[in-house]
Amino acid sequence: MILLDGGKAPNPRRVRIFLAEKGIEVPLEPIDMTALGHKSERVSRLNPLQRLPVLVLDDGTAISETVAICRYFEELHPHTPLMGVDAKDRAIVEMWQRRIEFYLLLLVANVFRHAHPAMAEWEVPQIAEFSEANKPKVLETLAWLNDELADREFIAGDRFTIADITAMIAVDFMKPARLEVPDGLENVLRWYKGVKARPSANA
Amino acid sequence: MILLDGGKAPNPRRVRIFLAEKGIEVPLEPIDMTALGHKSERVSRLNPLQRLPVLVLDDGTAISETVAICRYFEELHPHTPLMGVDAKDRAIVEMWQRRIEFYLLLLVANVFRHAHPAMAEWEVPQIAEFSEANKPKVLETLAWLNDELADREFIAGDRFTIADITAMIAVDFMKPARLEVPDGLENVLRWYKGVKARPSANA
Repeated sequence: MILLDGGKAPNPRRVRIFLAEKGIEVPLEPIDMTALGHKSERVSRLNPLQRLPVLVLDDGTAISETVAICRYFEELHPHTPLMGVDAKDRAIVEMWQRRIEFYLLLLVANVFRHAHPAMAEWEVPQIAEFSEANKPKVLETLAWLNDELADREFIAGDRFTIADITAMIAVDFMKPARLEVPDGLENVLRWYKGVKARPSANA
Repeated sequence: MILLDGGKAPNPRRVRIFLAEKGIEVPLEPIDMTALGHKSERVSRLNPLQRLPVLVLDDGTAISETVAICRYFEELHPHTPLMGVDAKDRAIVEMWQRRIEFYLLLLVANVFRHAHPAMAEWEVPQIAEFSEANKPKVLETLAWLNDELADREFIAGDRFTIADITAMIAVDFMKPARLEVPDGLENVLRWYKGVKARPSANA
């Protein structure tokens, strides 16, 4: 198998961090997204949506979508569980993974993609008003998350999960989106410092 | 257990259809979303994001997020699989479920929420330009889906899955969004006719 990787972009990083947490090594094929490598014939054939990463299995099956790739590895390597340990826990992890994705990562991406000059060819049309409209919503989600993190170490409970990976990537992504975690959100800042200190954060 | 249900809204319907396909009966607690019942103290306590549906387990655990609720039932009742049958198939179903969610359902929701007068209090601010910008993207996804459906019966392969539920709901949602599947997309129209004819479509 081979993982078509997209470097520093949020979704490729999510998969690499997931693999690092599990201690799985997968051969990577680097694709230069800044040179629009994700629109190449090779990537388009494997994923017509021209998004990375894409996992290509030995039988030629191409799996795209970050969480689908993660789930495949979770099934193959259930030790060091990152997506829950039983039916209830898996539902809770999925709930948190999706909450973070839809109400944090997606909103940060909206702020970034609809305002940053580098995204002018990626997000057509860029709508500055929509970027602005997402900013207070990002802060609302973070304030709520701060309350949730008051009595637990990680996003989905007492164990590091895929929801922490998505959330760390979302907070990292706030920097190019020119957003900051407000000083008062001490639980979020404590959690973020903790996940950033893990070796996987540099994967 | 009890399922806090939200009537005709897309996400409550997704869960009810999923349960109907599996032949599972769960007691429903109807919440009137048009009367903003999802912002009530009861719902807010169970899901601070004030979104429906919410599944409340007998131990009091509240599971929100449509796909998390579906996954819980998939684990408890693995017969009539709707989320895949082995590691590879589960990854493929998840890939399709997410593709449909992010590149169809979400885009249709954007068209609807940012333009429809009934959404003025739900989507603040409504940005008409953003609604318009999503319209051609919906049609692009449908055209691609039409090619994909040329050689198979269902979205994720030869078996009806959660991806078909999400896609049917997305196409249904095109009506209030004032969008139509173009006449030429015969594979999409054939698939849609098939899924709408299933008894679960009325759940």
